[in-house]
Amino acid sequence: MQQLLRVQNFGVSADGYGAGEGQSLEHPFGHADPSTLLAWAPATASWVYRTDGGGSRGLDDYFTRDYDRNIGAEIMGRNKFGPQRGPWEDHAWQGWWGDEPPFRTPAFVLTHHARPSFTLGGTTFHFVSGTPAEVLARAREAADGRDVRLGGGAQSVREFLDAGLVDTLHVTVSAVQLGAGSRLWESPEELDDRYHHDVAPSESGVVHHLFWRR
Amino acid sequence: MQQLLRVQNFGVSADGYGAGEGQSLEHPFGHADPSTLLAWAPATASWVYRTDGGGSRGLDDYFTRDYDRNIGAEIMGRNKFGPQRGPWEDHAWQGWWGDEPPFRTPAFVLTHHARPSFTLGGTTFHFVSGTPAEVLARAREAADGRDVRLGGGAQSVREFLDAGLVDTLHVTVSAVQLGAGSRLWESPEELDDRYHHDVAPSESGVVHHLFWRR
Repeated sequence: MQQLLRVQNFGVSADGYGAGEGQSLEHPFGHADPSTLLAWAPATASWVYRTDGGGSRGLDDYFTRDYDRNIGAEIMGRNKFGPQRGPWEDHAWQGWWGDEPPFRTPAFVLTHHARPSFTLGGTTFHFVSGTPAEVLARAREAADGRDVRLGGGAQSVREFLDAGLVDTLHVTVSAVQLGAGSRLWESPEELDDRYHHDVAPSESGVVHHLFWRR
Repeated sequence: MQQLLRVQNFGVSADGYGAGEGQSLEHPFGHADPSTLLAWAPATASWVYRTDGGGSRGLDDYFTRDYDRNIGAEIMGRNKFGPQRGPWEDHAWQGWWGDEPPFRTPAFVLTHHARPSFTLGGTTFHFVSGTPAEVLARAREAADGRDVRLGGGAQSVREFLDAGLVDTLHVTVSAVQLGAGSRLWESPEELDDRYHHDVAPSESGVVHHLFWRR
């Protein structure tokens, strides 16, 4: 059984930015409005935070319900974990997600600054440095035979892409233009030399781009 | 938690037939060629019978890998189970699927002719009569909180649709014209008064139609 490295439900603007400039505690996506960049996901029936029994069950819902299928570990960039930069000044910050982060697997946070692991709900966060290949090896071992999700942001996805380590990508492109920020690509077609590429526009307005290795 | 009745990966021709005329042991889909009606599914990485590690991981693969997610029971028409009609003349026939049928849950076969239940691999087949609502109640109980899949054929899907019991449908429409046989609809738009409807064309040539209740 192959153990894949998968990017899932990663949202970028029409011009390829996963977040805007000036990311902070108050503005996790910088000058980008996350409600326009990621609006398709909370509207679905399988959205992880939905409790009302409603939501759409069309194309978009296949992507939200596939989010944790056969995932055994997550790798994320430090900027996805929190707004801090540089050495950890205290350990009070435990991510954006409250007492029950939606990962529920080991999660490896990429950082050059040491910090002890901690567990919150079903998720244990580890703070790791090393090359993408080294971090992936640790995540694969922790995933216990299941796949590893690469959660973003754009800079982390680029590092693993450039190292040739990503097996599949699901990226949603929204209509908004950001102009600046953390960029995944100039155009989705940049990956076509290395990946098969399906394009699936949704009624919700986003376009789902699906890549898998050639 | 809702217990849905879901139609999944059900393939029809451009003119709405799920099988051709003259279904038999030699021709399970009658005059229809199943390799044109259902070719998209075996090409995917998650196809249930695939063992080679290959296959596509784009849009079509989301549908093959969603096939058994949260499914606890299957309901199928007798014509899906086998080519026999009328009373069971012997019990040697155990379906098309060999020693390990791909359902791996209780499976309820709609028939007016009594036959004892039997287990093959992880699947137990029960032979049931009654209204669609009565059969669904039995399948829901057997599914133990999970969803129920309505496996087809077209006649069975129509009966449950007409009884207002189907919560979601995923139907693939291929380019082939059949002209006669077991028909699901004249046009996918027939359901639009009762269902939301997403249309997702695939690079493989089929068009995925996704319906969920209004």
